[in-house]
Amino acid sequence: MGRIEDRLGELSITLADPAPPAGAYVPALVDGDHVLTSGQLPLVDGSLPVTGHVGAEVDPEQAKEMARLCAINALAAIRSVIGDLDRVEQVVKVVGFVSSAPDFTGQPEVINGASELLGEVFGEAGEHARSAVGVAALPLGAPVEVELTVRVRS
Amino acid sequence: MGRIEDRLGELSITLADPAPPAGAYVPALVDGDHVLTSGQLPLVDGSLPVTGHVGAEVDPEQAKEMARLCAINALAAIRSVIGDLDRVEQVVKVVGFVSSAPDFTGQPEVINGASELLGEVFGEAGEHARSAVGVAALPLGAPVEVELTVRVRS
Amino acid sequence: MGRIEDRLGELSITLADPAPPAGAYVPALVDGDHVLTSGQLPLVDGSLPVTGHVGAEVDPEQAKEMARLCAINALAAIRSVIGDLDRVEQVVKVVGFVSSAPDFTGQPEVINGASELLGEVFGEAGEHARSAVGVAALPLGAPVEVELTVRVRS
Repeated sequence: MGRIEDRLGELSITLADPAPPAGAYVPALVDGDHVLTSGQLPLVDGSLPVTGHVGAEVDPEQAKEMARLCAINALAAIRSVIGDLDRVEQVVKVVGFVSSAPDFTGQPEVINGASELLGEVFGEAGEHARSAVGVAALPLGAPVEVELTVRVRS
Repeated sequence: MGRIEDRLGELSITLADPAPPAGAYVPALVDGDHVLTSGQLPLVDGSLPVTGHVGAEVDPEQAKEMARLCAINALAAIRSVIGDLDRVEQVVKVVGFVSSAPDFTGQPEVINGASELLGEVFGEAGEHARSAVGVAALPLGAPVEVELTVRVRS
Repeated sequence: MGRIEDRLGELSITLADPAPPAGAYVPALVDGDHVLTSGQLPLVDGSLPVTGHVGAEVDPEQAKEMARLCAINALAAIRSVIGDLDRVEQVVKVVGFVSSAPDFTGQPEVINGASELLGEVFGEAGEHARSAVGVAALPLGAPVEVELTVRVRS
């Protein structure tokens, strides 16, 4: 068991196998010393705990929890291509898409669900640049989608 | 004629010159061993075959075809800066923005139009990480916009 | 005073300290020979000059000015992590998110506010690939959010 796996255990986080992509792409891809994930939905056992727009059918606290699930699924996708999350040297970038009612402006608090999870798991190596935006709709009606870029040791 | 040009010929795909950018930027840019394209619209001879929101004025099958056109225009943009598409070692990332009615959730099927084209052209080297999201509106009323990142041989 | 600082002075542009992030992330991050900024809002002294959707409460010319402010804030974020903007070798990528009424399709003209600023400051080194999309809503009600990737000299 690696250091990050231990940390995930302390946080009671279990990484599932990555969900099969909903199209002709891969869950994560190694590109030199970076790993890029595809946009991750908050799937649990293949289905979404909640669907809809934040600020309408979904409240911001629920959405923050969904963003945390997206980040967990992104870690599972990364592990599936590099084997051991101890190889992650730095989380580099997070992009968070929040399915938003037109008057909802709390995207940063929602995507903090992903950012804080990365801090809990990786500490300083979890610090990242980030964009958070409110989109019109997301695949399967998901309230949140998160993509991650990390740098890895060779 | 290179291998990829032959393949494009087999698929009856002709790459036009990249459309002049709609602003103070370039269609594609070489950054070390990567090429990044600007967001590509499904322009044919300078105009959009269809406009509007998917799930409203535009149906998903039309939009998928538009995503394919975006990918073809992205390849033209890449070729314009590296000369020969045989230099593409790996497609790395696709981001697909789908102009979406608020209740349209089929973004993955739409962006498969781009992903599948990349698979047809490049085979395994066409595999990529991907995000697909539903946005409120796109330039010129386009139903789809796609950006591509590829890694090239030096 | 460096060359770029001189140029900013000629343009009467003052870079403020970067705004504290609205979440668990950093304003900009050095990743090898690249710097990635977080999505920048058009904050002036910590508040937004205008809020709302472009094509509704905000007109395109105001929004273009806001995009320029986003780019200025992005330069401040980059300077905060590399010290001297003369180290910027090339602006590589701009992503511009425009909070858009569903029928607003002028995102390129809005994001030109950022692209043209980069050209004024960096000349040819300011050329970049770009995506501009219309989103449903942005943090704090901002009309525009812009993220930047630049390559730096070591």
